[in-house]
Amino acid sequence: MTAELRRRLFAECLGTALLLAVVIGSGVMAERLAGGNAALALLANTLATVGGLYVLIEVLAPVSGAHFNPAVSLVMAVRGRLAAGALAAYVAAQLLGAVLGAWLAHAMFDMSLLQFSARPRGGTGQWVAEAVATSGLLLVVLRAPASRVAAMVAAYIGAAYWFTSSTAFANPAAAFGRMFSDSFAGIAPASVPGFVAAELAGAALALAVHRGLGAGSRDD
Amino acid sequence: MTAELRRRLFAECLGTALLLAVVIGSGVMAERLAGGNAALALLANTLATVGGLYVLIEVLAPVSGAHFNPAVSLVMAVRGRLAAGALAAYVAAQLLGAVLGAWLAHAMFDMSLLQFSARPRGGTGQWVAEAVATSGLLLVVLRAPASRVAAMVAAYIGAAYWFTSSTAFANPAAAFGRMFSDSFAGIAPASVPGFVAAELAGAALALAVHRGLGAGSRDD
Amino acid sequence: MTAELRRRLFAECLGTALLLAVVIGSGVMAERLAGGNAALALLANTLATVGGLYVLIEVLAPVSGAHFNPAVSLVMAVRGRLAAGALAAYVAAQLLGAVLGAWLAHAMFDMSLLQFSARPRGGTGQWVAEAVATSGLLLVVLRAPASRVAAMVAAYIGAAYWFTSSTAFANPAAAFGRMFSDSFAGIAPASVPGFVAAELAGAALALAVHRGLGAGSRDD
Amino acid sequence: MTAELRRRLFAECLGTALLLAVVIGSGVMAERLAGGNAALALLANTLATVGGLYVLIEVLAPVSGAHFNPAVSLVMAVRGRLAAGALAAYVAAQLLGAVLGAWLAHAMFDMSLLQFSARPRGGTGQWVAEAVATSGLLLVVLRAPASRVAAMVAAYIGAAYWFTSSTAFANPAAAFGRMFSDSFAGIAPASVPGFVAAELAGAALALAVHRGLGAGSRDD
Repeated sequence: MTAELRRRLFAECLGTALLLAVVIGSGVMAERLAGGNAALALLANTLATVGGLYVLIEVLAPVSGAHFNPAVSLVMAVRGRLAAGALAAYVAAQLLGAVLGAWLAHAMFDMSLLQFSARPRGGTGQWVAEAVATSGLLLVVLRAPASRVAAMVAAYIGAAYWFTSSTAFANPAAAFGRMFSDSFAGIAPASVPGFVAAELAGAALALAVHRGLGAGSRDD
Repeated sequence: MTAELRRRLFAECLGTALLLAVVIGSGVMAERLAGGNAALALLANTLATVGGLYVLIEVLAPVSGAHFNPAVSLVMAVRGRLAAGALAAYVAAQLLGAVLGAWLAHAMFDMSLLQFSARPRGGTGQWVAEAVATSGLLLVVLRAPASRVAAMVAAYIGAAYWFTSSTAFANPAAAFGRMFSDSFAGIAPASVPGFVAAELAGAALALAVHRGLGAGSRDD
Repeated sequence: MTAELRRRLFAECLGTALLLAVVIGSGVMAERLAGGNAALALLANTLATVGGLYVLIEVLAPVSGAHFNPAVSLVMAVRGRLAAGALAAYVAAQLLGAVLGAWLAHAMFDMSLLQFSARPRGGTGQWVAEAVATSGLLLVVLRAPASRVAAMVAAYIGAAYWFTSSTAFANPAAAFGRMFSDSFAGIAPASVPGFVAAELAGAALALAVHRGLGAGSRDD
Repeated sequence: MTAELRRRLFAECLGTALLLAVVIGSGVMAERLAGGNAALALLANTLATVGGLYVLIEVLAPVSGAHFNPAVSLVMAVRGRLAAGALAAYVAAQLLGAVLGAWLAHAMFDMSLLQFSARPRGGTGQWVAEAVATSGLLLVVLRAPASRVAAMVAAYIGAAYWFTSSTAFANPAAAFGRMFSDSFAGIAPASVPGFVAAELAGAALALAVHRGLGAGSRDD
């Protein structure tokens, strides 16, 4: 492994860890403070995620591309922008980072590190929502100009927390990591495969829509 | 129909569908979670709309101009920036997209697809508000530099959700699509003609104000 | 009066009117929906003002400089960036716009057009706050690069709604116009002179601080 | 002392004072209005801080670099971007500004100027959180392009208010100044050393991570 690939994997692992720490940590804080009002809790969770995601992408994109998401890495590999040989390493770094991020959030909030979510998520509506959420995210990633991609991805996820019934995980690594947290942002392990399948279907849909819009418009 | 026009119509239909899915879907989510506090529900609905609109315009403007709004397309045709022959096709794509977007929101939230709003909207104040809201939107569209139009339109609509009594539909396609949703963002079918008439009056007002400000300042 | 000055005065009048319509209108909407929670009402009022102010400055700055504020125009005249002969006309256009904006908000919300606020504001803390708020605003105006001034002014006012005890009118025309609205954003006529005096003191303070920081850094 | 260094110290003192006035003042306002809902209070406090911090950095960075934070100045000295001889003066200006800012907030809200917080903060979770929060802030400062650093720092702190259990002071001068305010944003004097130690540990961590990511990527 070259020093450069090591740096890229470090960036993917670190970025995914911090993204999960932001999502889970702000969920814990929001739920503790919101006095039972779920809209207020999700609003705080949303704003923290938007700010954190924007900054993580801006900071780490020059190192690794700032995927933090196996669906993004997969699509980048399909589009020839990530070497096939690096794909598995990227995904492994993201999954590892996701678990570490959950644990970091728990450490900051004095919760036991190892835990599993008891919150089931799924059903037709939420699976449709995950597919829609992921396809939208990937369209943004595929079509945004590099100078705006961080702001656009962050704004998109902020909207998607609300307009999808699943609150838009849109990221198999996020689903994986949130499984390890029995908190506001958690997802029961049994619900993860359904979410991941829907996300991968959304990724395939995004590639088709991208072509339908004239794939070459900005980045090819 | 050329391949390029087909792509543009696809972008208008897709963008309007996703805009309506964002507006209606986030309204459903917000109302479900807000525990009866309408300000909190509208706040969440606003932030989701702002984020979604910003991203949709950035992503699709290079393809179709990202109108998603018959009033915008009409004014662009009047100003010579949309071929008269394309206007009807643009509007048809937008209206189709609006209905599909309402249905997509319903699918994501496990609601019955086909429904009609029972929420009347109107009266002098709201009609004045729709005219003001639409004229403001069109002034932004007419005068914004291309590199900022997405952020400006999104910020404007976010403000207009609150400073107008009608929550600023400002878009005949949005009024049409929201008619098909018996939810937070809905509008009763009988109220749609009044809203659309006010929006078209606002569009005419915007053209006059644009001239009064010196129409050539940025884009001509 | 030249056609160009007429356009500039139209822009100042229009911009101030819409600014007041945003501030007052969103205050009415927020108070109606917030169920008695003043923090939620001010939060909505803040976000609408931030979005509206950003857009108004972006749209109208190329025409008139987008002052919408006699304290800004006065400082611009002192700094030689507004002809002394235009100062009085700018201020008159702003004051006229402020009243028209209050009336527009009332029209949109089916309230009686002519009314006066019964809400007293003032006391040492609030006067200090108005001076601080206005000096901060003017420092932003004096030192911001032109390409960012709209975003910076909007962000500043959003913060100042909360960190000052007066909710940062920071604008004699706003104080004047809000006197005409017996609503969330109103100010009793007897309280206006104190606010305006504090704002002008803040403007003078800003000029001193600007010099202390090295006045020439960005714009001279 | 040269006139230029004097201007820079004035900017650091002024900026830190206004930052603390924003943090403490908006905390007071938010707590007064929020009717006991801590999530709503922290949300308002967050948005005011984000807006204020963005503007203060944009306005004052050309003068002093806009550190407002001894941990930032220390890291800049270590990286050779702040002369070692200026470091102590920067820190002194920041600490002085922090106290003045707390007093300014109290003056605006008609509170007694001199007071001390009775709110203990600390414990393993919060110390971990302060280290994480500060290391994240410094990574942003070290790696952000100059044109975006203000937006990125502001967005980061907005997220960190929520994803850390300590609400992310991330700044020894902020901890020092907030000690002087018995309000929402306060910290008991006895809790300050633990916070500062954690922040300095976070600064050291940031330097290590910066090197691990390939320190030269943007700014060297």
